[in-house]
Amino acid sequence: MPTYSAPVRDLQFVLHDLLGIAGSAVPGYDEMDRETTGAILEEAGKLAEQVLQPLNAIGDAQGCRLENGVVRTPDGFREAYDALREGGWLSLDADPEYGGQGMPYVLETAAGEIFASANISMAIYKGLTHGAVSALRAHGSEEQKATYLPKMIEGAWSGTMNLTEPQCGTDLGLIRTKAVPNDDGSYAITGQKIWISGGEQDLTENIIHLVLAKLPGAPDTTKGISLFVVPKFLVNEDGSLGMRNAVTCGGLEKKMGIHGNATCVMNYDGATGWLVGEPNKGMRAMFTMMNEARLAVAVQGFALGEVAYQNAVGFARDRLQGRDVTGAQAPDKPADPIIVHPDVRRNLMDQKSVVEGARAFALWGAMLIDRAHRTGDAEAEALISLLIPVLKGFLTDKGFETTVLAQQTLGGSGFTKEWGLEQFVRDARIAMIYEGTNGIQSLDLVGRKLGHDGGKTVMGFFEMVKAFIRENEGDEDLGRDFLDPLKAASKDLQEAAMYFMAEGMKNPLNALSGSYDFMHLFGQVCLGLVWARMAKAAKIALASGQGDRAFYEAKLATGRYYMARQLPATGMHLARIRSGAAPVMTLDAASF
Amino acid sequence: MPTYSAPVRDLQFVLHDLLGIAGSAVPGYDEMDRETTGAILEEAGKLAEQVLQPLNAIGDAQGCRLENGVVRTPDGFREAYDALREGGWLSLDADPEYGGQGMPYVLETAAGEIFASANISMAIYKGLTHGAVSALRAHGSEEQKATYLPKMIEGAWSGTMNLTEPQCGTDLGLIRTKAVPNDDGSYAITGQKIWISGGEQDLTENIIHLVLAKLPGAPDTTKGISLFVVPKFLVNEDGSLGMRNAVTCGGLEKKMGIHGNATCVMNYDGATGWLVGEPNKGMRAMFTMMNEARLAVAVQGFALGEVAYQNAVGFARDRLQGRDVTGAQAPDKPADPIIVHPDVRRNLMDQKSVVEGARAFALWGAMLIDRAHRTGDAEAEALISLLIPVLKGFLTDKGFETTVLAQQTLGGSGFTKEWGLEQFVRDARIAMIYEGTNGIQSLDLVGRKLGHDGGKTVMGFFEMVKAFIRENEGDEDLGRDFLDPLKAASKDLQEAAMYFMAEGMKNPLNALSGSYDFMHLFGQVCLGLVWARMAKAAKIALASGQGDRAFYEAKLATGRYYMARQLPATGMHLARIRSGAAPVMTLDAASF
Repeated sequence: MPTYSAPVRDLQFVLHDLLGIAGSAVPGYDEMDRETTGAILEEAGKLAEQVLQPLNAIGDAQGCRLENGVVRTPDGFREAYDALREGGWLSLDADPEYGGQGMPYVLETAAGEIFASANISMAIYKGLTHGAVSALRAHGSEEQKATYLPKMIEGAWSGTMNLTEPQCGTDLGLIRTKAVPNDDGSYAITGQKIWISGGEQDLTENIIHLVLAKLPGAPDTTKGISLFVVPKFLVNEDGSLGMRNAVTCGGLEKKMGIHGNATCVMNYDGATGWLVGEPNKGMRAMFTMMNEARLAVAVQGFALGEVAYQNAVGFARDRLQGRDVTGAQAPDKPADPIIVHPDVRRNLMDQKSVVEGARAFALWGAMLIDRAHRTGDAEAEALISLLIPVLKGFLTDKGFETTVLAQQTLGGSGFTKEWGLEQFVRDARIAMIYEGTNGIQSLDLVGRKLGHDGGKTVMGFFEMVKAFIRENEGDEDLGRDFLDPLKAASKDLQEAAMYFMAEGMKNPLNALSGSYDFMHLFGQVCLGLVWARMAKAAKIALASGQGDRAFYEAKLATGRYYMARQLPATGMHLARIRSGAAPVMTLDAASF
Repeated sequence: MPTYSAPVRDLQFVLHDLLGIAGSAVPGYDEMDRETTGAILEEAGKLAEQVLQPLNAIGDAQGCRLENGVVRTPDGFREAYDALREGGWLSLDADPEYGGQGMPYVLETAAGEIFASANISMAIYKGLTHGAVSALRAHGSEEQKATYLPKMIEGAWSGTMNLTEPQCGTDLGLIRTKAVPNDDGSYAITGQKIWISGGEQDLTENIIHLVLAKLPGAPDTTKGISLFVVPKFLVNEDGSLGMRNAVTCGGLEKKMGIHGNATCVMNYDGATGWLVGEPNKGMRAMFTMMNEARLAVAVQGFALGEVAYQNAVGFARDRLQGRDVTGAQAPDKPADPIIVHPDVRRNLMDQKSVVEGARAFALWGAMLIDRAHRTGDAEAEALISLLIPVLKGFLTDKGFETTVLAQQTLGGSGFTKEWGLEQFVRDARIAMIYEGTNGIQSLDLVGRKLGHDGGKTVMGFFEMVKAFIRENEGDEDLGRDFLDPLKAASKDLQEAAMYFMAEGMKNPLNALSGSYDFMHLFGQVCLGLVWARMAKAAKIALASGQGDRAFYEAKLATGRYYMARQLPATGMHLARIRSGAAPVMTLDAASF
């Protein structure tokens, strides 16, 4: 059975040595000193290790069952959910006005990684409620907020997001679910929604569905979509639960992974709902919480990479097979542990360098969200909007790849259910698909974000990279191992961006054919940048003579690996991009 | 539910337009004209499409059950196995002296792809018997051959390979299973073997286990291993089945995929066995069939890529979502089929170009095996020995990657069991692990094969690439799209080989740290070479004005995609290799 130990030491490094959150000017961050975040993350780690992780394989094996319209989650999930609720983990960054603790989103994100590593199926129930709370808080009426938010933040009620229908996933203009006005200001919602995570479950007293639907006569595009709140049980004026609403779970999807999370077909048969925000502005309401939701999925990607990596390392230290080519390391044993072999290390270093880089990138992204929300910093808002598709697309691809690499470390054992690595692979796969497939992320990046503000934001990003290189070029050691590769990678990214601007003008297909490679190229440069920054932070810590030398030395060695072995991918992506649309678009649809 | 259509047209192109098998000098190939191979492959396709493929999802859902020592395969597997047997598919390339049909291995490989695409779990039962037949034929005594081969070739009995034990996988020197001589010339075999595919099943009357074990006093290395034949039922002198042998199935592994294939724990409790070949030469006997076994696994890799790709294309043609950015393609429908979108095409072209290239590479490898076996051509033998780890390692990695890409084409549907793509991903994963993990393949390539004959064989490979480029450089069109990229990629490979020779001498870790990238770099060049050759063949066919123009045009377009979009990976691999051992080996084992 797999094990998990929360990487609190590394999270603390990112929050404090790298991001310096306590000293930053973001309101609320001043309370987030090293001791405070350490204590909070240690507590999250305990719950994750002792309660959530032991249920992870059980959740996979049992899955969820639908019995007479009721969904039964796996054994122990209810108790674990209660433990999350009682520990205050459902309200960490929620608005204090509605009972939340008001902590920064960056801390929510750090804790979120821990919960996702331990039990992704459980983390999804939590994550969906978080998203629904954000949407209601931003767009709900005062009455709606008062009715739903306190119970949702407390965790007594959960939230869901209802977008997809059988005929529409990416293209939400095709939505058919109808909302017909009732006389009392409410609406009768009718239609079928699919792939609704936590659409029905036995963890909470009530479930608050946020549903995209069309008002009568609304345009047949995404500009004709409105958002509705549809509670499973109607709420009486005194806040108690009233009548059961006409929304039912019609079935559960059988899936590759995340079996502990109920993925529901939801049937709305004239269910009573209330408009959230303005008519026909449902998409805008969705976009409000999209940055956070996509960042949370990015975190799921590398969180599963982290736990898979931990188990791969454990196996590589224990498994005795073959001898070190430079001489026996365990001469008293029948063979050496396989961690001595270069190709096993190559595999482990790929995992480690990606996961640690991803963690730093994601928490930097969360800090940008805090900055945008708490100070109204428009530059932070523009930058995180640009980076979100990169975070989601690149980190979930690399996270999945990491679980596959970790599985490979175990050889045949990696393919068995007993060792649990194969579950991480199956569970990690969904993160590349939901919250907008990674292909859609790449279109968002290239088609929408890149040219935003005439390219001002991406230019700002390049300036940031250049400034960092300039400020540190006096450090020869950093220069050779970190700044030079970063400079080369960043140059590849700029050339790709210039190619898009020049060629994409002539023919949009030239840009769209390279969007996926551009997303990866951008992701590589972002991880190169955070690794260079982490290297600098580690060198400062080492120079100070304080703290855990071995930790900082390992950080530098891992960063050097990333720069030498991962970053060269940028040249390949640039070459693919530069080949333009012809190789992609020539073939007839009939000739595939 | 997924569908499958055997790619007979493309197999025929490779066998005839590319490899020109009927006109080659390999004995037996002269009978393999276009009509003959076409008829045989059409028959294989029918069986695969009508009998094997419909059982594939059933096999996955039901898996195998162990009941009172008996393994029950999924519903329908017994009948399907009988159909394979009655169709003569178990004896296609077997020795006519023992009842085989004596056809070339290249045809067995082509048919093998079809069966693996349709039902990989069933194909594995067949493949193991094929391997056991090869080993017995090469190393068994006349009596052993007469006793076992006819029944195995006919398919009445199956064969298994027993290598792995709990404490030993890659490092077979650690084997503990003992073989103690009995008075009658037989041996008493005692020990536990794990991960034995088809170790027990209900498809055949008898199961012939080939077992690696140690004689008393044998050295504690791979030089102390002997091979034994241990039938489930002892065979009487008249060929009838006698006593049940003391070998039993102690359990079935629960696995990520290939659920229809029984992966058994096998307990040998003083089971009666007979030495195959010489004492302590068991590893040599294993090596005899290793090339074929590894090539068969390489084929499994892209065979699953092929069926996954077919279903991805089907989905992309049917699914309506969004509009073509250059203008609506299906204005009468609510949206265009997603195959119009550049990023969907990019994904499909990656799948298509890899699978078609892999098919050509694998069948070329099978032809080399025929040439080596049927004419004793030492150069062909040396070349296929060099290429086998590339075929196995590169094509199974790319095959798995292709299933993941195909799954992505379907978005959320790809994650559901209903559409079946997720099964292809789970099933394809094993090919990267068994028959020597892909890491082991890369060590075989760099540590053993590359320096073999002082590098003469790899130099011969480079010469072959150069000669092809030289012979065709008059063709400008071929030159620009195929020869130039091939030249650049081949140069990267040569530089990597030179790096290994120079740096590997100084420090073997420099070579071993880059072995995996070298395997991929080599694989890219091989696919680049076969694509250039296929392009030439397609141009010749087009110039002749005969045949299916659309097919040959598509072949050229797909090849251009490969050269433009896949081949640029070589530079990345070279950069990784050149970074040497330091990034890989610096970290303490304790610091991971």
